[in-house]
Amino acid sequence: MMKSIASSKYLACLVGSIILNLLFIINIYVGGQWKLSWSLGAAIEAETVAAIYCSGHGRAYLDGLVVGNKPVCDCNTCFTGPDCSHFIPHCTANSDGYLRIISPFFRSMVNNQCHGISDAEDPPRLESVEELLRDLSMHSYSGDPLFLEPFWMQHLASSALVVAGWHQMSYTYGGKSFFSKELAKVVRKVHASVGNAVTQNRFIIFGAGSTQVLSAAVFALSPENTSSPAKVVTSVPYYPVDKQQTQYFSSQKFKYEGDAYRWKNRSDCSSTNMIEIVTSPNNPDGQLKKAIFHGPNVKTIYDHAYYWPHFTPIPAPSDEDVMVFTLSKLTGHAGTRLGWAVIKDETVFNRMMIHMRMNSMGVSKDAQLRAFKLLNAVLEEGTGIFDFAYQTMKSRWERLVQTVSLSNRFSLQENNPQYCTFYNKVRQLSPAYAWLKCEREEDKDCYAVLEAANIIGRQGNLFGAEDGYVRLSLVRTQDDFDILIERLHKLITEEDGDKTMREMRCNIC
Amino acid sequence: MMKSIASSKYLACLVGSIILNLLFIINIYVGGQWKLSWSLGAAIEAETVAAIYCSGHGRAYLDGLVVGNKPVCDCNTCFTGPDCSHFIPHCTANSDGYLRIISPFFRSMVNNQCHGISDAEDPPRLESVEELLRDLSMHSYSGDPLFLEPFWMQHLASSALVVAGWHQMSYTYGGKSFFSKELAKVVRKVHASVGNAVTQNRFIIFGAGSTQVLSAAVFALSPENTSSPAKVVTSVPYYPVDKQQTQYFSSQKFKYEGDAYRWKNRSDCSSTNMIEIVTSPNNPDGQLKKAIFHGPNVKTIYDHAYYWPHFTPIPAPSDEDVMVFTLSKLTGHAGTRLGWAVIKDETVFNRMMIHMRMNSMGVSKDAQLRAFKLLNAVLEEGTGIFDFAYQTMKSRWERLVQTVSLSNRFSLQENNPQYCTFYNKVRQLSPAYAWLKCEREEDKDCYAVLEAANIIGRQGNLFGAEDGYVRLSLVRTQDDFDILIERLHKLITEEDGDKTMREMRCNIC
Repeated sequence: MMKSIASSKYLACLVGSIILNLLFIINIYVGGQWKLSWSLGAAIEAETVAAIYCSGHGRAYLDGLVVGNKPVCDCNTCFTGPDCSHFIPHCTANSDGYLRIISPFFRSMVNNQCHGISDAEDPPRLESVEELLRDLSMHSYSGDPLFLEPFWMQHLASSALVVAGWHQMSYTYGGKSFFSKELAKVVRKVHASVGNAVTQNRFIIFGAGSTQVLSAAVFALSPENTSSPAKVVTSVPYYPVDKQQTQYFSSQKFKYEGDAYRWKNRSDCSSTNMIEIVTSPNNPDGQLKKAIFHGPNVKTIYDHAYYWPHFTPIPAPSDEDVMVFTLSKLTGHAGTRLGWAVIKDETVFNRMMIHMRMNSMGVSKDAQLRAFKLLNAVLEEGTGIFDFAYQTMKSRWERLVQTVSLSNRFSLQENNPQYCTFYNKVRQLSPAYAWLKCEREEDKDCYAVLEAANIIGRQGNLFGAEDGYVRLSLVRTQDDFDILIERLHKLITEEDGDKTMREMRCNIC
Repeated sequence: MMKSIASSKYLACLVGSIILNLLFIINIYVGGQWKLSWSLGAAIEAETVAAIYCSGHGRAYLDGLVVGNKPVCDCNTCFTGPDCSHFIPHCTANSDGYLRIISPFFRSMVNNQCHGISDAEDPPRLESVEELLRDLSMHSYSGDPLFLEPFWMQHLASSALVVAGWHQMSYTYGGKSFFSKELAKVVRKVHASVGNAVTQNRFIIFGAGSTQVLSAAVFALSPENTSSPAKVVTSVPYYPVDKQQTQYFSSQKFKYEGDAYRWKNRSDCSSTNMIEIVTSPNNPDGQLKKAIFHGPNVKTIYDHAYYWPHFTPIPAPSDEDVMVFTLSKLTGHAGTRLGWAVIKDETVFNRMMIHMRMNSMGVSKDAQLRAFKLLNAVLEEGTGIFDFAYQTMKSRWERLVQTVSLSNRFSLQENNPQYCTFYNKVRQLSPAYAWLKCEREEDKDCYAVLEAANIIGRQGNLFGAEDGYVRLSLVRTQDDFDILIERLHKLITEEDGDKTMREMRCNIC
């Protein structure tokens, strides 16, 4: 009897164990993981590097900072240590972001370059050497949109990408084009879901970021067979790269001619070919801008890099002749270098295609694949990225406005409310940059005022404006933003302290 | 007794089953796969698409040809069907490779473009419209180096890449540079292992393929503050893109001036700034070429795209001032758009950095990461990729020489043997292109002769040479090469047949 019970027990255990065996077999061979072969090693490697702990103040990359062949944490501004947990209170040297770095390297770049800007006879010639010197420092990258990094850290599965070694080796897609049809499809879907641009019956071309796309548009819109080059203009305050790039590539076809307003009522312009670049929302001040020039000799390029719910209400889908967008300010992937233009006219599109071929024989297919994956993830997440981006920018603006309002020494641009068709409500602008003004008579060099408080912005004159203005980036990491607010707060409250001290001294007198 | 035996059997089975369970547990939780979380879905997706069967005559990509949201096979030239297994014997329309496609689209591109090439007063102006028309057809991509695809299909694990959604979002690497230090390190290692370039104490800069890097070099080497633009020259036969690109971007700084030989003994050149682009091994004829111009006013750019053991013996490491390389002709990844220059002079390097910034704000980090992964795989495989590439090219040349030698109607360039330091032996050149000559008086338009036999090459005049020459690409897929040989063979043997028939007819007369 006892043996019989033992036997039944063994049998029961055996059945249980076999069922467990079967479950393991099913799990391994039907559950998905069994399929992995060639990608497994790379996947483990990528997950291992991604899991390196950097205290939330840094990140490790396979191709990033490496010590003895091992990826290590690359820390945010003012953080250091193996896991980036150590805060440097008065950090000044060897950090980026709001901190000045004009290395001998960049100084040498500019010294060798500035002679090349042939604006000796042009109105916008003033201080171009100085401008380039300052602009070619690392401040140029203060538009780094790392405020979106946490969104992607929260959406790992939908945004992960796996690439086989033999993936897309050809110059073209199917021998037909440099540009991925599938990427163009998903770009159209994203525009349709946001309602910020008309893309039906429009051509779409890709480039290495909006930088290359804008340049392609200027080349494509410049008329041929003309004795005088087209005048390329931008209205103050303008995005400095438009000026620098147009000057750099200037030829018999086009020439940069500075502030659009200066040319507005000049009679000699009525028959001149004009190309106006309209950055809307504008960089630096975030305002929805309109073209100044109209007419048969005028071509307009709308730089819509910031025309997303992150930064502005969307009053209506834009329907301009040439509209330029970039992955950088939509998903935050500046390093992927992937921008696009939505174009009405086939001839303009064809000419931009020629530019892309002459310039770089198309656009990296790896960048196109990454964009394809990320934009699909954007669509999968519904309004997720827009909600995240808008809430982040809104909250940063609230903190900034609160801080600046503690004093009358500084003011910010007006971010007037407008109806947003994306959110179906009236909302304020939440621009990528603060266009800060020093209000005091003695603070003419606003940059210097902030610099003394260890805050590095970008001088107003780089944007064609006065030096009473400074642009501050609000799109960098949370650490960068926190440090900015802390230092602004300190500057403003110490200012109040000084004022109180002065008043006290005065009373004593 | 029977029960006892049954009981022991159950026990034995149970123990076995438990051990199996333990093995499963160990396998799952210690064997590596347990670590996968966010990358698993993407890995399964990538492996599933990569496993789509295309009969060895095509490939499916996630971002390639899609039918109803499902990736499908994109077939090689002359193959069709859901799995590319159906051969189209007399394929002409809608295929690429050696088959002519000048679509209305490309015709329109050229019609809109050609007026822009301001060479009305230049010596190399002749037929530039025609040249562009022909060149901007899909023939341009006949350099697609898909002969290397099978190598990567055989080395899946070492070349696979997994990327997190938040990977490298910034414009820069650690706020310091557009270019990956780790990539530069591995580029140096590859050059050191091959011995084809001196990289110690040299600067390395990346660009979107050698196309963008060459352009950056021309801009950087053009002198400032000069009344006349630098003359950019290339010696016949030259790489057509050098001419087209220089003409496209020509400005007050530089101008394309055609064949270098034409300027060699002109006294008015001794004080002129000259920039000579030397493609070595040369495209189209594969010969190791040297600069024609020397002197204080001369700058030389060596385009070393083909200076790898795949195509040429390596007599010595090159040690020129500016040397340009590209991933495209090393690993076969043309679509990644990743080229680099090895530069002696810091000023030239800094000026090229400015170009990269003005042009496209750096280079796609996704392209840099892909190159990093692939070049590391190249190093891991020892001489693997070089052996594969050399053997493939050698075998293709043997078949081509054998076919062409059947007749006196055609001849090929001389691929004279030379000592190769990489293989420590004397070996012949095995160029990427055949520079075929039609030897008969009546075959002045060699392109037309081949076209009649359904072989589309590139006309000699595109390279500044006579139309008795045609360039045939030998670096495309095995299918493309097989079709080329088959058609050449048919052309040559039918020719012999015709000749025999003529002789027979003659005898009858």
